[in-house]
Parts: sequence; C-alpha cells; structure tokens
Amino acid sequence: MNNKINVAVVGATGAVGREMMNILEERNFPIGQLKLFATEKSKGKKFTVQGEDYVVDTIKPGSFKDVDIALFSIGSTPSKKIAPQAAEEGAVVIDNSNAFRMDDNVPLVVPEINMEAAGQHNGIIANPNCSTIQMVLALKPIYDQVGIKRLVISTYQAVSGTGKDAIDELEKQIKAYVNGEELESEVYPHQIAFNVLPHIDIFYDNGYTKEELKMERETKKILNDDSLRITATAARIPVFYGHAEALNIEMEEELEIKEIKQLLDDTQGVEVVDVPGEEVYPLPVQSEENDQVMVGRIRKDFSVDKGINMWVVANNLRKGAALNAVQIAEELISI
Amino acid sequence: MNNKINVAVVGATGAVGREMMNILEERNFPIGQLKLFATEKSKGKKFTVQGEDYVVDTIKPGSFKDVDIALFSIGSTPSKKIAPQAAEEGAVVIDNSNAFRMDDNVPLVVPEINMEAAGQHNGIIANPNCSTIQMVLALKPIYDQVGIKRLVISTYQAVSGTGKDAIDELEKQIKAYVNGEELESEVYPHQIAFNVLPHIDIFYDNGYTKEELKMERETKKILNDDSLRITATAARIPVFYGHAEALNIEMEEELEIKEIKQLLDDTQGVEVVDVPGEEVYPLPVQSEENDQVMVGRIRKDFSVDKGINMWVVANNLRKGAALNAVQIAEELISI
Repeated sequence: MNNKINVAVVGATGAVGREMMNILEERNFPIGQLKLFATEKSKGKKFTVQGEDYVVDTIKPGSFKDVDIALFSIGSTPSKKIAPQAAEEGAVVIDNSNAFRMDDNVPLVVPEINMEAAGQHNGIIANPNCSTIQMVLALKPIYDQVGIKRLVISTYQAVSGTGKDAIDELEKQIKAYVNGEELESEVYPHQIAFNVLPHIDIFYDNGYTKEELKMERETKKILNDDSLRITATAARIPVFYGHAEALNIEMEEELEIKEIKQLLDDTQGVEVVDVPGEEVYPLPVQSEENDQVMVGRIRKDFSVDKGINMWVVANNLRKGAALNAVQIAEELISI
Repeated sequence: MNNKINVAVVGATGAVGREMMNILEERNFPIGQLKLFATEKSKGKKFTVQGEDYVVDTIKPGSFKDVDIALFSIGSTPSKKIAPQAAEEGAVVIDNSNAFRMDDNVPLVVPEINMEAAGQHNGIIANPNCSTIQMVLALKPIYDQVGIKRLVISTYQAVSGTGKDAIDELEKQIKAYVNGEELESEVYPHQIAFNVLPHIDIFYDNGYTKEELKMERETKKILNDDSLRITATAARIPVFYGHAEALNIEMEEELEIKEIKQLLDDTQGVEVVDVPGEEVYPLPVQSEENDQVMVGRIRKDFSVDKGINMWVVANNLRKGAALNAVQIAEELISI
C-alpha cells in the first residue's frame, strides 16, 4: 500500500463511527482520501478530521473503488450487503458488526492477540464484540502461561454499546426523572435508568442471549481453542460508557496472584488497576480517559482449585470497537 | 405474648427504618405501643403508623422496659452497644446489622427457611444481609432437592442498600449531571451515577470485600452447611431500589430446568418471572411493587456438569431487610 491510505468510514454518524474518526485523528493515521458514508437521513452532515472537512454521503456502486481500508460500523444486516461490495471494489473491510465474525473465511482479530490471522483475509476482517475484546485481552496472558479450563462471566454493559439512540434514551430518561416526568422507553423494552436489563441482543431457545453466546463463540475462535468451557450472563446497566465484567476463571495449572498481576502488567493494551485498600479498582468512568483494558480485584477463588476472580473494564466504543478496528488497519498497512 | 405487641423501631428515620414502619402498617401488625428511636439529630421527627402519630426519641436507660419486640436498623457499632441493653430490658431484638450475624449464640433467620432457629434466641435474632436473603430463598428449594456444590455470584446492588444518604447522593449526582454541574461524591469514594463500583463494605487482605464474604458465611450459616463452596463479586450500580444477582450454580445431582421452575414456583416468597421471548425477566424497578423474590433467566450451564444460571431480583429494603425482620416478628408472636 502507499504511504497515504484512502479510508472510508461506513456508519460515520453512529456512536462507533464518530469514535473511528476521533481515533484516526488522534493516532495521526496516514489518511490520503477519506470518505464518510451513512444512510440517506444523515447525508450532508459535516465532520472535520485531521483539519479537513468532510461531508457524509450515501453508498453507490463504485463508492469503494479508490478505497484502501473501509471501517464499517453499521448493523449486521446492512454489513452483510455492503461489505462484500466494498471488498469486491478493492477495499479491505474491517467490520464491527456480528455479520462475519463466525464465518470460517473471515478472520476475527484482536491485534495484540492474533494479528497473524488477519493476513488470511479475503477482503473482510471482523472486529469482535466489545465484551469479548476486553475479556480476551485480560485472559490471553493467563491462557498462554497455564491454560484456562472454565470461565463464568457476568457483564455490566454500558448503553453506548447499543448505539447513539440508547445514549439518548438514557439521557432523556434521566432528564424526565429529574423533571418529575414519565420515563419513556423506545430503544430498550424496559426503562434503563435506575434499572438493570439481563437482556442484550435476541434470546435463543436455550435461554441465552446472542450476546452471551457471542462471548463464548468469539473467545474460542480468537484463542483458537474449542475446548474452552464458557458460560455468561450479560446485563445492561445505566452507564453511558465503559463495560465492566466479573470474570471467574478456573485455570489448568496453579498461578499465584502476584504472578498473574505481573503477567497482566507486562501485556500490551492491559493495565493492572488494583489497590483496593486505597479504593483503586477499574471503573467505567475511568475508561472515558483510558484506552487500556483495566484489570483489578484480582484474587484467589477459594471455592475451587486453581480459581481466580477478576474485574475487567474497558471503553466499549474505543478498545471494544473503533480503536480495535483502527489498530487492525494500522497493522495491515505496516505489513 | 399478648394479643397486642409493644414494638420499638430503632433507627426509625433511616431507609430501612421507614420501610419497617410502612410494613408494620401494611401488614396490620398488632401494635400495642410503638416507640421510635433514632439519634439526637432526628429527635422530634414525627411519623404516622396505623393512623397514630409518633415522635422520634433518643434511647435512654429503661427505653426498652415495656417493649416486646425491637426492630433494629442502625449500624453495626451502635447495634453492638444498644441491642444487648434492649435484650436485657426484656425486648426481643431483631437486628438488621452485621453485628451479631455470625455470633454462635444468635440465630440468623429467613423465616421461610429456618424459623426453627429463631426459637433458640437469647434475646437477639439477626436479620441476614440483603443480598444473602434473596439468594438463599432462591437456592433453598434446589438445595433441598438435589444439593448444591458450588456457587459463583455476581451482584448488581442498589444504592438504597447503603442507606438514605446514598439515595440522596445518587439523586444529587443525577441532578448535577442534568444541570451540567460537577458531580460530587461523599458517601461513596467514587461517582456512582453512570458508574459501577466493585466495592461494597470494607476490603480484607485476601482481596475480598466484607459484603462478598458475608454472602458466603451467612449462606452457610442459614443453610447450616459449611461444605458449600461459594465465591462472590459484589458491585454497586446506579439503581435506587432492588438488588439483582447473577447466580451460577453447580448442583450435586441433575435437575431439569422445568423441574427447577416448578420447585421455585412452589416456594413461598419466590416468584418465577421467566418468559424471555416476551421480554419478561426480573428487573430491579419491578421490585418496588413486588415483595416476592423474583427469579428468571433460568437456563442450563453448558460449561459444567449439572450447572445452571439464574437471575434473582428482590427489593433490598423490604424482603432484603425490613420485611424479613417484620416476618420474623410475626412468626415469633404466633408461636
């Protein structure tokens, strides 16, 4: 590829799309041409990236002709339609939706973990689910060192994971509460302010949500290990930014807590935030200013052999989505 | 005891104390005399219970002389001092604090589970922790039927569990946010609005919080089984009322999901709320109007033999505290 890269952001006006533009700017991504795409209703919106003004357009045949890398963050259904068009027109698509993640022909990539898989792409690379990315980053050093037998996961997920409409809905409900007005729900099936919904994405007949099964399946694919045993409960809480996860981990072999802390400390993209006596532990609000995956509350689980508990927090829009996508792009162009 | 019972509410102006008065009224508790106690700063406050007006007073020697049952909801430290006085002056104390829960001479009681233990009291009966009460109620029928080997718990706890000051703090932070002002924290060490704190009660050297260890120890005491293996992560979330819990349960023997639902359905104080396809599952906001312990998201855990996951929600101030205490009192007077 050239020194300057022609980039497209598809879904530019969404919560993740906006972060993609922020991150391209912050990280001085070597943008040649930049194209911003969204649906008809956002056509004409303007954004400034790296000092240049850009206008949002809709996608037409040929839209991706000169594009080197297309960062997609639209829903699964539109991605299934448009990503193959972009790939056919010559772009490498980095897709943030669920559309291609479990496709055997599509690599599912966290750059710090399995960038080598990205080399096998056929025009599309999938970005994992936000909850999966932060979890596998925290698990990988432990997995490599001693192996992992079983995981029990509970998530505490921010509304921004649903998208901009959900951020607006929590915002509106909070205002309605303060003004003594009725709280209205459109994006979620129930009030999200001052509530917890044990429901993210659709339900399957086995009682699990798609989000819960994504965490299982994507983790197995990224670590390339189908023998891992994983169960999850995913819950949405009234937080704007930053997903938290309580992880209960059964390791294959013993590892001391201080060794685990050292391993995590030595891991790129991970930061140990764990001084409970001084009230220092990972918090969603901290993730607004910190792109690292924060791990804390690391402690022995006395209820099982070789067990530990830990608490993992990261910015779901950035490392959980836009940043991971841009990092994949950076690695691609450095190859 | 007489037909009419002389009752004292100690800590009457707190979040739980107020609920105690509400519940005495709602359930037509046969009150003879009622005394309301609090600290100096609340002296003179007035409350109406069952149509009678009462004035809050401070405690003096002899305050409990004519009291049959004293419902305590003050901190652990004052309880340790005042509960023995009340017991010595002839009252039966039902104490909501942590002061006596693990005391071998004090029964720890959930009336639906181990009311027989209450008969052994020496003047003081302890009310379990709010998170423990709702959990053991949901576990008991499974425990009785097939036994439980191991529990992995993650909690999503409301601020009202901390007390009235914490409710006010979340309220203030929400208002500050809407008004574009700075969010100030006094009760919690960090902002609670739009955040999650993996920190309830103090930290021990082993990395656990007191809340997490309470759930383990109290459950073992109530079920009278030290062989249970339990590990917990307790987190505070920006919800006013209603604690939620993600429970991962390893049973001793196989039990089908539909049998578990039937068992829970047949359990007094428990309600199965579990039609995920219709977006029906337990929610903290529902617990404001429902005194049952709600259980939903009941599903097989495919990662372990004889495993299940479930989601348990209850009103932490009512069944988790005030209601459980009044129910103990009701059972005591019916003996």
